[in-house]
Amino acid sequence: MSPDPTPHIAITAGDPRGVGLELMLQALGKNPPPAHYTLIAPPQLVESMIEKLPHPKPKIKSIRKGDVPNGTVSLLPCAGEVELEDVGKLDQETSARIALASLDRAIELAVEGRFSAIVTAPLSKSAINRLLPGFVGQTEYLAERSGADEPTMLFWRPQLSLALVTRHLPLSRVADALTVDTITRTILALTELLQAMGEPSPRIAVCALNPHAGEDGILGDEEGEIISPAIEALQRRGMEVTGPLPADSLLTRIKPGEYHGVTAMYHDQGLIFFKSLGPGVNVTWGLPFVRTSPDHGPAFDLAGSGDADVESTKMAIKLAVDLVKGGGGKR
Amino acid sequence: MSPDPTPHIAITAGDPRGVGLELMLQALGKNPPPAHYTLIAPPQLVESMIEKLPHPKPKIKSIRKGDVPNGTVSLLPCAGEVELEDVGKLDQETSARIALASLDRAIELAVEGRFSAIVTAPLSKSAINRLLPGFVGQTEYLAERSGADEPTMLFWRPQLSLALVTRHLPLSRVADALTVDTITRTILALTELLQAMGEPSPRIAVCALNPHAGEDGILGDEEGEIISPAIEALQRRGMEVTGPLPADSLLTRIKPGEYHGVTAMYHDQGLIFFKSLGPGVNVTWGLPFVRTSPDHGPAFDLAGSGDADVESTKMAIKLAVDLVKGGGGKR
Repeated sequence: MSPDPTPHIAITAGDPRGVGLELMLQALGKNPPPAHYTLIAPPQLVESMIEKLPHPKPKIKSIRKGDVPNGTVSLLPCAGEVELEDVGKLDQETSARIALASLDRAIELAVEGRFSAIVTAPLSKSAINRLLPGFVGQTEYLAERSGADEPTMLFWRPQLSLALVTRHLPLSRVADALTVDTITRTILALTELLQAMGEPSPRIAVCALNPHAGEDGILGDEEGEIISPAIEALQRRGMEVTGPLPADSLLTRIKPGEYHGVTAMYHDQGLIFFKSLGPGVNVTWGLPFVRTSPDHGPAFDLAGSGDADVESTKMAIKLAVDLVKGGGGKR
Repeated sequence: MSPDPTPHIAITAGDPRGVGLELMLQALGKNPPPAHYTLIAPPQLVESMIEKLPHPKPKIKSIRKGDVPNGTVSLLPCAGEVELEDVGKLDQETSARIALASLDRAIELAVEGRFSAIVTAPLSKSAINRLLPGFVGQTEYLAERSGADEPTMLFWRPQLSLALVTRHLPLSRVADALTVDTITRTILALTELLQAMGEPSPRIAVCALNPHAGEDGILGDEEGEIISPAIEALQRRGMEVTGPLPADSLLTRIKPGEYHGVTAMYHDQGLIFFKSLGPGVNVTWGLPFVRTSPDHGPAFDLAGSGDADVESTKMAIKLAVDLVKGGGGKR
């Protein structure tokens, strides 16, 4: 046993032109669950942002270098080479450099075992892509940099969670990316998340890929050839998995408590439904550490306005702490 | 001018094992808008169904052959060769024959000009497909049989309508089916529906195809190459068309009154959103006659239970009458 069981949580800066960092600062100021939090960001930027945040100011007890005791937030500087004159005048490239430096440092230290979880702030994929061609999302980048080649993208809310079989992929490539193996792995990851959050025998509904669930093969054959075999094999293992169901019917008629989780075949299929439920948490399953994130983007139009909703960020921090304590979410 | 301006509306039977016909009978009994209605179904089936419908029984004033005056419903027999012993024991093939015979007769008479609109009851695509290989949906069939090769699938509700650029297509074929022309035509059809329903300058939002609207080309190039050019050309014509917008953000944050209509690229993208709003009407645009339908399937599990919601069927009948009166919906 570790001498100090308190979770060590890294918090990344995300793209500082967006709402991510200011929401992290707000959330950390509002009685976050007991943990050691280390915010990885340029100090000048953090100070300036706290100053500009609307009242009531977040009560961050201590912002200084190095680890500090429980209940306070450590600040680990990153992107030291970046010169900051005015947060409001940050250009896209500088912001992307900060976002990437913060994320890289968090991964490096989490892989070394210094952090048991990373809570990431949102960034601009296209801005990062200009520095780092091929970057399609933090989920894929975290997996690649930590040596985990098969991450699963999950979304958590108290009543109903979501898993995506494919993630950041052009729609034209979704059908080819479905295999019995990817579908099985995704449903198992969702099951593990739900079990880690206290549901021993989760009931999971699985969306079809095609309209009307392929209508017995007339509108596509992936249901019969790929999705059903994956579901049936899991059913034979005693799991309560139902589907493939027509996504539009399933996701618009689902009753509270009917299922604990839904598995969708692709990004928009799952998220057009999930985001309508309210704030949620993006969870990456299968990394060597826990990773959570608010389920929204950088929302550049809301930055500095005070109008961005902190709820998803608070939920992401709490879920990271809960998963570290429960031992879930890691490969 | 016609000597009798009252709309002549055909009502099809759909698959009699489902809820379609019983909902049509209920809706026709509850003060439908003034029109001449002709129900196309086997008389024995209709009588038996009215008898079995839960109280309060629909007040259908007259069921008999041939046209009757306004305020009553005519019954035009179809599928005369089908022997009906017990509605509850109809097999799949017999039901499909009834559904198809009713639909065929409605189209034939509408093309001849006897009906100005058809309101179709839901059927089972896969059951029809066994009689008629290649059948993928009533929308496509209506278009083919009436000589209209480019129908548009629209969905109407009082506050917000929806258009689908692609309809009953396997997901793997959606991306290839998008062209500047199909997108333009779909947006124009939606605009015409909204104008016919009283909104002279409709505001329309257009969904992206790929996650995050392609994230500047990283997650797909259809946004830049196909969808944006279509939208920009319509904007240059003075239309209020916005997009392409990331579908999950657009459809979960849309505010009442912000847009009059949404154009989605494929079936589930639009319907996972639209069906969550409540009952709606499926409208086919571009036929030689008006065609509406409730926006749900045959719901075999609810047939005869009295639990099926008649609202969408009532809305479909009312919209057909309104469109005929307003002169909209026809090629």
